[in-house]
Amino acid sequence: MVMIAAPVLDALAAIVGSKHVIAGSDERSLSCGEDWRGLVRRRPALLLRPGSTAEVSAVMRVLHEARIAVVPQGGNTGLCGGAVPAEDDNEVVLSLSRMRGMQAVERSAGSILVEAGCVLATVQAAALAAGRLFPLSLAAEGSCQIGGNIATNAGGVAVLRYGTMRELVLGLEVVLADGTVLDFLKGLRKDNTGIDLKQLFIGSEGALGIITRARLRLHPLPVRSLTVLGAAPSAAAVVQAYAAFSSQLGSRLSAFELIDRACIEAVAAHIPGARDPFGAPHPFYFLLELDDTLAGADLETAAESTLAALMEDDAVSDAAVAQNETQAGAFWALRENVSEALRGAGRLLKYDISIPDIPAFLDAVTADILTAFPAVRPFVFGHIGDGNLHLNMSLAAPDAALEAALTERVYDLVDAHAGSFSAEHGVGQFKVAEMARYKPAAELALMRSLKTVFDPRGLLNPGKLLP
Amino acid sequence: MVMIAAPVLDALAAIVGSKHVIAGSDERSLSCGEDWRGLVRRRPALLLRPGSTAEVSAVMRVLHEARIAVVPQGGNTGLCGGAVPAEDDNEVVLSLSRMRGMQAVERSAGSILVEAGCVLATVQAAALAAGRLFPLSLAAEGSCQIGGNIATNAGGVAVLRYGTMRELVLGLEVVLADGTVLDFLKGLRKDNTGIDLKQLFIGSEGALGIITRARLRLHPLPVRSLTVLGAAPSAAAVVQAYAAFSSQLGSRLSAFELIDRACIEAVAAHIPGARDPFGAPHPFYFLLELDDTLAGADLETAAESTLAALMEDDAVSDAAVAQNETQAGAFWALRENVSEALRGAGRLLKYDISIPDIPAFLDAVTADILTAFPAVRPFVFGHIGDGNLHLNMSLAAPDAALEAALTERVYDLVDAHAGSFSAEHGVGQFKVAEMARYKPAAELALMRSLKTVFDPRGLLNPGKLLP
Repeated sequence: MVMIAAPVLDALAAIVGSKHVIAGSDERSLSCGEDWRGLVRRRPALLLRPGSTAEVSAVMRVLHEARIAVVPQGGNTGLCGGAVPAEDDNEVVLSLSRMRGMQAVERSAGSILVEAGCVLATVQAAALAAGRLFPLSLAAEGSCQIGGNIATNAGGVAVLRYGTMRELVLGLEVVLADGTVLDFLKGLRKDNTGIDLKQLFIGSEGALGIITRARLRLHPLPVRSLTVLGAAPSAAAVVQAYAAFSSQLGSRLSAFELIDRACIEAVAAHIPGARDPFGAPHPFYFLLELDDTLAGADLETAAESTLAALMEDDAVSDAAVAQNETQAGAFWALRENVSEALRGAGRLLKYDISIPDIPAFLDAVTADILTAFPAVRPFVFGHIGDGNLHLNMSLAAPDAALEAALTERVYDLVDAHAGSFSAEHGVGQFKVAEMARYKPAAELALMRSLKTVFDPRGLLNPGKLLP
Repeated sequence: MVMIAAPVLDALAAIVGSKHVIAGSDERSLSCGEDWRGLVRRRPALLLRPGSTAEVSAVMRVLHEARIAVVPQGGNTGLCGGAVPAEDDNEVVLSLSRMRGMQAVERSAGSILVEAGCVLATVQAAALAAGRLFPLSLAAEGSCQIGGNIATNAGGVAVLRYGTMRELVLGLEVVLADGTVLDFLKGLRKDNTGIDLKQLFIGSEGALGIITRARLRLHPLPVRSLTVLGAAPSAAAVVQAYAAFSSQLGSRLSAFELIDRACIEAVAAHIPGARDPFGAPHPFYFLLELDDTLAGADLETAAESTLAALMEDDAVSDAAVAQNETQAGAFWALRENVSEALRGAGRLLKYDISIPDIPAFLDAVTADILTAFPAVRPFVFGHIGDGNLHLNMSLAAPDAALEAALTERVYDLVDAHAGSFSAEHGVGQFKVAEMARYKPAAELALMRSLKTVFDPRGLLNPGKLLP
């Protein structure tokens, strides 16, 4: 437990204003100490709400001097406990929520300058108002913040076409543990002048510095779109369909999702208004979205010709092209309601993994894991174009020993298939043990050395990321 | 001058074979000691040609133990002296040229695994043979090597659509100064498990490690393309045209180049067969390329409608859509022959810069630099979509004092316009002074700290990158 001395509190209040220095026992602090899923509840030592980069810098100087640990927090929608304290009464939560400034979009610029506390949806809206697209899109977009999106290298549904957050960050401003402000905001697409330091802060979950501003890349706005739902005899056939659509339609392909039969059945059974698509059941389904910036683009003809060839090849068993937005919405609802539909499926373990060869991995899940754990029922969906699977394993009831053994077996299998135990959710405080188990010692040692360079006193987001 | 003791030479020969340990005075070594433009000629202490990652690792262990400095070298086509020694008889050149292994492309994989010594053109060809595109494309592609492309974060003509080399690297294998091999070859598009260490090796010019293998991202292969040459009254109008084409045509727009009147006149005057396009002269020209993966795509109609709106707006004064490949080739020749045409333009200083606001910068060049240096004639072309200008300044004759003053003035102006003094060519040994002048001290200090983490004895590519 850290005691924050009165002179330190006075110094902090002088910087951010006393109403933005909030006691750890205050309800607002306690709310910031709890993660989105309610899995961690920690009392912060203090909640600080600076209003500018200068205030963040001054606050960090004071905390660094006093050797007080800091948890940077954005919208607090993370799934790995990375934005909440790891212990009670030990860490200051530094919320970026007041920093919501945003530059007007210049059409020719192709970028927008925002403060870290901007909510993702407001950035999307600002881009749209200027006739541009900010493509990052994920379930929490109504409350997650840009700083957190960058710190976790957020993914979501548009990665296939536009990349993860790393590819959308043109420039960054970062405050280091000692208060030093680094300005990488130029936002040039080409700038080969030394080590590209800003890359280090993307995806390192606040362990190396606090992101205060970013220049984000905007894309041309699609004006036409088309949604297709298909059925396939195997996961390999879904991959074949993905390859065909990718080859023919190129970057028009903005999403390509896989859904297994178990998920479709759960949605049809539990979601009001949802229907089992097609006449017969199929082992796998896929949902794809095409879009185009050209108002006159004929997406239907191209999609239908690609589907016809795949059906000729027996890679696609059935398919439907959405005829209007309502139908497209109904197709997407099948995918988007999977998590909701699985709420009734008993104890659910969720694995956010990525794998180079998804069909081979799914075969191995059947052969290896379902044999070893016969009581477990799998529900599989994911972003097949990114190699990202959301593998859900359902048990009739909680069983701590079995869950631990299952989790280890799943991640061991992922590792054996050259995959990742965290595709888009990050490490936070929940997957530190997996870092220790699966990352080579040489890489961990280098990560620790980098941590020491940027945060020699170990004050930034302790207990996260690194074992 | 470093003396390499006989036991060290024996150990090296035992690793790579004696015919791949080549004395510094040998013609092959001297050739490796000279950069592509002949601006640096250094005698290596030794030339080593390992044949595998294991050999690179074993060689580095020996050299690290003996505290001998190493210059990694690929195709030796760099423009900043980064791949040749900084001193005579002091550094071992470690050539990756024998490491040309390449995995067969799997169509569904969207990636290819290559050794660092693969020539860029052979990677392009392997992708093409599998019906895919490896989009990196630059003048030296017939001899530059993938390892060097990654170490310098190469750019080229396709950055607008596909990004620089950083966006094309899915995975890397790197050998550190002490021989440690780091395997980041999984090549997952989504993998948020700790600090993304591989980013550090991209663009750091061999100062942190030696790239030995890479998994590269392949793209769908375009099968239709269209080239348009246009004329515009101002640089601002060219930017307007770029924005319009980008909005309408989206990612079909794969290149958008600006060329000023002086360049066109030089090409028309000095290149056999080249003609001044259009009836009248225009202050600026642009050259754009559209392409599409759909065989039936109608690029002409979309291009003509976008051009018509721009002409209505007086942003485009004249334009021609290439009717066949010969005409497209003739349009591109205007751009590609600029450097050749300027050979007769006296002493030429070339600046590879990037700027957020190109029209404002060009106005400032006229107002500031041409006023201060009235004898200088500018020739301007560049990749406008990337903000990358190749600014050429011609003098009647060499004048060292004037050239130094001009260079400083140009880079000061670039810096004042929030630009970069090296957009795609890197730093090497030629731009170390600019690093000292324009990079903030805090950033240089961090870069030096990172250098110390990865290369504590300072043996990797000394005298480059960092002042």
